[in-house]
Amino acid sequence: MKAVGIIAEYNPFHNGHLYQIKQIKERFPKHLIVVAMSGNFLQRGEPAFLDKWQRAQQALSSGVDLIVEIPTGFCMQAADRFAFAGVQILAALDVEYLAFGSEHSEYDFMELARQAATVTGDFKKFDQSYAAAYQNALQATLGIALNQPNDLLGLAYARANQQLGEPLKLVPLQRYQAEYHATELVAEQAIASATAIRQHWKSEQQALCQQYVPPVTWETLKMAPTVVTWDDLWPLLKYKLLTTPVSELAQIYGMSEGLENRFKTIHEQLAKTATYQEFLQLVKTKRYTYTHLTRLTTAMLLNFTQQEAAILQRQPYMRLLGFSQKGQKYLGKVKKTTPLPIYTKVGQADKEGLLNLDYRSGKIYEMITGNAQDLKKSPLRYL
Amino acid sequence: MKAVGIIAEYNPFHNGHLYQIKQIKERFPKHLIVVAMSGNFLQRGEPAFLDKWQRAQQALSSGVDLIVEIPTGFCMQAADRFAFAGVQILAALDVEYLAFGSEHSEYDFMELARQAATVTGDFKKFDQSYAAAYQNALQATLGIALNQPNDLLGLAYARANQQLGEPLKLVPLQRYQAEYHATELVAEQAIASATAIRQHWKSEQQALCQQYVPPVTWETLKMAPTVVTWDDLWPLLKYKLLTTPVSELAQIYGMSEGLENRFKTIHEQLAKTATYQEFLQLVKTKRYTYTHLTRLTTAMLLNFTQQEAAILQRQPYMRLLGFSQKGQKYLGKVKKTTPLPIYTKVGQADKEGLLNLDYRSGKIYEMITGNAQDLKKSPLRYL
Repeated sequence: MKAVGIIAEYNPFHNGHLYQIKQIKERFPKHLIVVAMSGNFLQRGEPAFLDKWQRAQQALSSGVDLIVEIPTGFCMQAADRFAFAGVQILAALDVEYLAFGSEHSEYDFMELARQAATVTGDFKKFDQSYAAAYQNALQATLGIALNQPNDLLGLAYARANQQLGEPLKLVPLQRYQAEYHATELVAEQAIASATAIRQHWKSEQQALCQQYVPPVTWETLKMAPTVVTWDDLWPLLKYKLLTTPVSELAQIYGMSEGLENRFKTIHEQLAKTATYQEFLQLVKTKRYTYTHLTRLTTAMLLNFTQQEAAILQRQPYMRLLGFSQKGQKYLGKVKKTTPLPIYTKVGQADKEGLLNLDYRSGKIYEMITGNAQDLKKSPLRYL
Repeated sequence: MKAVGIIAEYNPFHNGHLYQIKQIKERFPKHLIVVAMSGNFLQRGEPAFLDKWQRAQQALSSGVDLIVEIPTGFCMQAADRFAFAGVQILAALDVEYLAFGSEHSEYDFMELARQAATVTGDFKKFDQSYAAAYQNALQATLGIALNQPNDLLGLAYARANQQLGEPLKLVPLQRYQAEYHATELVAEQAIASATAIRQHWKSEQQALCQQYVPPVTWETLKMAPTVVTWDDLWPLLKYKLLTTPVSELAQIYGMSEGLENRFKTIHEQLAKTATYQEFLQLVKTKRYTYTHLTRLTTAMLLNFTQQEAAILQRQPYMRLLGFSQKGQKYLGKVKKTTPLPIYTKVGQADKEGLLNLDYRSGKIYEMITGNAQDLKKSPLRYL
């Protein structure tokens, strides 16, 4: 039994994700598909539109054999560290290939990673974001434009794979139709970006979304109109900003260069009716991307501190979300040799120890949806 | 110009309070009436049903000449310390008499205070609350039953007055009709307890409340159906309990004997649908009164720490909420000699300094009602 791995967020699971699974099955008909997915808070600092169990169910119904959760502490990091955690987990699950969507599937990503390793510097120009400065330096070294979101993620996977001794073979899959950040739904296509689907769902154009998601996602969306967005969490963040001294906000993971003062001051001057998005626009400067700032608001919301991050960083693990029959057999085999702990349940001691951040994230998510996320939850079985 | 003082919470201002003001005016027709009132969170740990400006307006329309706010840090203390802060503020406003309702207006409260001063001990019997143990010891010393809520408050005022060198003369006024804790509304009476009024308002029997409150309160209640109760604040408290480590909860003012563990553990085991009241019932033991525990939940909600309490304790002050024409003149006179700072506005520096707890309390209250409480608010003028 061999497996192809995917690192995903499925926010929500749509036809593009289904298409990717079909591509993999055509190319590797005898392989299982193993997914490492983020939990209830995503790498770009957003709460997941649907919870991790709903998204895992959608993946299992769509041909995935084994799905595990990447710990929240790793999801709440910059893209390269998130990628590293995903690669590390898939390698620990003895996956042979890592498949990922790419705008340029013809590139040799491992070779690009070797060249990119020579790009160094601190990229601290105060008139542009770190990400932009890094991309400019990267382009100068590689001699090609590597600035599309999926290509950059592919490079991050390749670099992580390199650092881990190349346990995985990389399989870039050509992206089909939708641009990553596209916000339009195109009537004659079956694939739209997750961003476009979320935006149309939120703006009450929900019926329009049906053609872009598989029936299992559509049924979940219709059953659970409580999708979670920052608008739902905004009162809690306001409360947090109000009651937490600046000195304590400075301890939040990723907080730097006095940003805690900026968050606090702007929050205090905010109009009563201001939305989360309006708040973020006021905080935004050229120096920081929206993603970085959004991720910081999540870190504040979850009270994710530098100290907690340092502890988690040293102890990678994964949480089992679900499996098919084949996936269950595969898991039984890899369990014997995997170097990382695989949690199948969250017990009392786990929730107070290493898994406390995951537990807190789930409880905050549950405050909005009413659906329990961790304690007493068993992995999904798709048999 | 001389004045009679009242220490009040007005939660909400009702006919019993109006009757008290009339009693004072009959007895001291030439005196002004000065009120020291709690702000948006009350001594028993509840959010005020109506905000401090609404309650100040009700008092001013009902014959009060000057009304100031007792700082939140003093309201969030045991009854004897709250009483001390009230007496200290009224003394600083050069008030001659302190009037208060009492179940036994014939008692000489200053004399009782002198006897009560000899009651000592630590009252730490684990089968009863501190309050109950103290009351038993008190009764043994005084030889009379002093266990009614207003009598006990009267004794607390008397003891504070004694400690401050007796700046005030005490005027106990016989309580009329409603018991302090009564929950019934009696149809043929015009006076009901604040507790009964709040409970009937909350249980949708709102029309019943009209006969027990003056028109000004009735109009406010009708205009602002957003009265604030713990039910409104419960999501914020749950978030706070979820995201705050036990070691940090232990720093909250009034937290002792490992209660932080009890709060945290019970919160974690709570059913999803549990209400604030159900939570409190689970936390309750014989050792602690509901009031003590409720006050602790407010301290957690406001993130009121032992450190902050220690700083506030050393720097008493008052906040001006409103005045009549006579009250304005009186204020102009006492301002020249008062030993305590009187804040007429909350500026940027105040809100980040000494008045930060008041500011935070107001902002949390505002999250429910949408009405600003501090910055840019000027005292009410009833001319």
